[in-house]
Amino acid sequence: MSFESVVDEVQRRVVPDDAERRALESAVEELTDRATAAIEPLPVAADTKLVGSTARGTWLAGDRDIDLFVLFPPDIARSELERYGLEVGHAVLPDGHEEFAEHPYVKGELHGFDVDCVPCYAVEDATEIRSAVDRTPFHSAYLEGRIEPVADDVRVAKAFLSAIGAYGSDLRTKGFSGFLTELLVLGYGSFRAFIEAAAAWEPPVRFDPADHGERSFDDPLVVIDPTDPERNVAAVCSPRNVARLIHYARELRSDPGIEQFEPRKPEPLSADEVRTLLDARGTTPVAVRFETPDIVDDQLYPQLEKSLEGIEGALERAGFEPLRSACFANAEAVLLVECAVPELSAVARHGGPPVGVREHAEGFYDAYRDDDVTGPFIDAEGRYVVERRRDARTPTDLVRSMLFEVSLGPHVRSSLSDTHEILSGTELATLAEPFGTELATYFDPRP
Amino acid sequence: MSFESVVDEVQRRVVPDDAERRALESAVEELTDRATAAIEPLPVAADTKLVGSTARGTWLAGDRDIDLFVLFPPDIARSELERYGLEVGHAVLPDGHEEFAEHPYVKGELHGFDVDCVPCYAVEDATEIRSAVDRTPFHSAYLEGRIEPVADDVRVAKAFLSAIGAYGSDLRTKGFSGFLTELLVLGYGSFRAFIEAAAAWEPPVRFDPADHGERSFDDPLVVIDPTDPERNVAAVCSPRNVARLIHYARELRSDPGIEQFEPRKPEPLSADEVRTLLDARGTTPVAVRFETPDIVDDQLYPQLEKSLEGIEGALERAGFEPLRSACFANAEAVLLVECAVPELSAVARHGGPPVGVREHAEGFYDAYRDDDVTGPFIDAEGRYVVERRRDARTPTDLVRSMLFEVSLGPHVRSSLSDTHEILSGTELATLAEPFGTELATYFDPRP
Repeated sequence: MSFESVVDEVQRRVVPDDAERRALESAVEELTDRATAAIEPLPVAADTKLVGSTARGTWLAGDRDIDLFVLFPPDIARSELERYGLEVGHAVLPDGHEEFAEHPYVKGELHGFDVDCVPCYAVEDATEIRSAVDRTPFHSAYLEGRIEPVADDVRVAKAFLSAIGAYGSDLRTKGFSGFLTELLVLGYGSFRAFIEAAAAWEPPVRFDPADHGERSFDDPLVVIDPTDPERNVAAVCSPRNVARLIHYARELRSDPGIEQFEPRKPEPLSADEVRTLLDARGTTPVAVRFETPDIVDDQLYPQLEKSLEGIEGALERAGFEPLRSACFANAEAVLLVECAVPELSAVARHGGPPVGVREHAEGFYDAYRDDDVTGPFIDAEGRYVVERRRDARTPTDLVRSMLFEVSLGPHVRSSLSDTHEILSGTELATLAEPFGTELATYFDPRP
Repeated sequence: MSFESVVDEVQRRVVPDDAERRALESAVEELTDRATAAIEPLPVAADTKLVGSTARGTWLAGDRDIDLFVLFPPDIARSELERYGLEVGHAVLPDGHEEFAEHPYVKGELHGFDVDCVPCYAVEDATEIRSAVDRTPFHSAYLEGRIEPVADDVRVAKAFLSAIGAYGSDLRTKGFSGFLTELLVLGYGSFRAFIEAAAAWEPPVRFDPADHGERSFDDPLVVIDPTDPERNVAAVCSPRNVARLIHYARELRSDPGIEQFEPRKPEPLSADEVRTLLDARGTTPVAVRFETPDIVDDQLYPQLEKSLEGIEGALERAGFEPLRSACFANAEAVLLVECAVPELSAVARHGGPPVGVREHAEGFYDAYRDDDVTGPFIDAEGRYVVERRRDARTPTDLVRSMLFEVSLGPHVRSSLSDTHEILSGTELATLAEPFGTELATYFDPRP
């Protein structure tokens, strides 16, 4: 298939039809009317604003998310903003419930749409925001009048990024946000131009649509927020996801196909398959299994990753050569590290100072001369050395003895303290039950 | 015991008595007479000179080595020097045999003394020497009239360095030569001052007795040759032996005793003891056993060490974490490496270029996309990675498959090509038979 015909076909799938647009418009109208009526009796003035992809006309067909913001004057107290915000929210969504991001807000349903009714401050300028939500109306305002000509190309780009697992700025995905996708497609002018460009990216890549950025960033992709010169819209985007976009952009260019817009859905592995794969890899896996802490994903995944790094780092430092690692979570969570080294010698080398550095050298020698160690002796470079008993000779022994000494996320630590299980070798086959799909991806990793 | 009484006791042991001195003097006289008589009919003029510790009066009681040099004018050809030199040598030592250092020379026996009769060029200045032996008469000349007052202290120093295994500038020992020992004791003024100083050495340490050195050296101990400003007398002295002198000097200072002048003689280990020790250490040893090449020690040991480094380096690069290594040789030779890692996973990580470096990245991806590897996938830093089958999963497999690919000494390589045996694990117990003493030292290493 040609690139164009693939894009055409994808557009047929992701551009909402007229009925969907009308349904959305009427829902938005109804929500706005309810909000205006609820604002009316309040002692402060407030405005409503539709934001997000429904406001910008870049939502994917079938998406049912409406974000209605209620903008309050910046001179009212935060407690007032929250109180009035919830009052309006409950009036707009009588069956809704409260959730909490930076402010509390009301989430509910109307005519099959998932609606967030979120209060924010109507600050003068995006650089004066008090919380991240205050920024959203500026983004919508910036795109108004600009995004329309490429709205359908944005939809195709979102579908593409979703398929490769790189869409979303949540802290689990660490991918491309909607706004970032919009700025990129707008900047390059079309989906195709965006793909052509991404295929040739050599990170770090920097864009500045409003040409006002001054500071530098360490990120592989830097897109200066057109509403705030100090902010990188792509800050959350991981080096891996930037590389994945580059890779899949090249693949799409060289061999365009509809399947490149369809997420990979591997068959879950069975316990037997996990055993067979581990045996073929000849690795020494160790996994910690525990109850998933009851926190939102944006807290959970960073904590899981930090904990995994803590464990992997300890295994690395001890010489077990971690080969790969992963964390999975649903009701329960797993931190998994696969090591290349199954076992280490009973003794380990412990190098001391050069004999010529008198004070340190004498201290080292005196500390060990009567100890139950091999040595002290002197190595080829003229340093004291002893060989001591090693604390843990296998990855599992190490994790067992050091789990609470490594850096762990606080909620992970507390869940591990409650109870946890350490699995080694083929015991990992029991993970096929809760995490068969995740393990299928893990054992057959793609770019 | 006090330091002084220890030194007194050692002197009683190492200073030769009058009978020994007289026997030596009479042997030297007889050798010189024979040499003079043999030179007389030659068509060139030549001189004899007694060199080495017997000439300097610093030999240890019981040492039976006499070095008689025959000095020829520098204008004769090397072939003539060799011919006349051997003629004189055979006349001096009728039962002697020829050996070869830089020139051929004659080695033989007289009245129980081992005599080397060595031809050399009587050059004007030590910087003009044609071979290393030409330098020796200059060293003797420099020490004449200087060394006498400390001759007995030099003997004590030699006994001390011998006891700690650091005496001798041969390429097996890589220790302190006689001349170096003499310069150090002369420089510090006494054995005690030498020990006090060495205990406080912080390498690099530099001496220049003739105060004429200009160039710098990388060695831990630099003693500029008083007869050649370009030469470090201690060049062969290893960092380990410098450190060992420092260590044992401190020990002797803090706890003087006669036993510190007695070489350690460990009991040879039995095969069972080797097995028990290996088991306790929990290491994975691998050893290569072969017939010792028929070359002099000064060629053999550098070749064994180079070969051992080659094997150890390959094990290190492959991830088997060598813990310690050694080479032993008598009629047969052994290269031994003890590894901390017994086995590695079947797959190994092979990292590729960052995805953003287009040409390399596409080359890597295309090379592996259809290969029987895990991946290619993209790591957290945005680089391609594959996991490939590992060539060798154990230290023994690695040595078996790569022995002739590592850097080996040429004579070692050819002996290995003839035949060799690779021992692993408890098979090393069979080495107790030829190398029980060496293994005892290896398993209980001292400074």
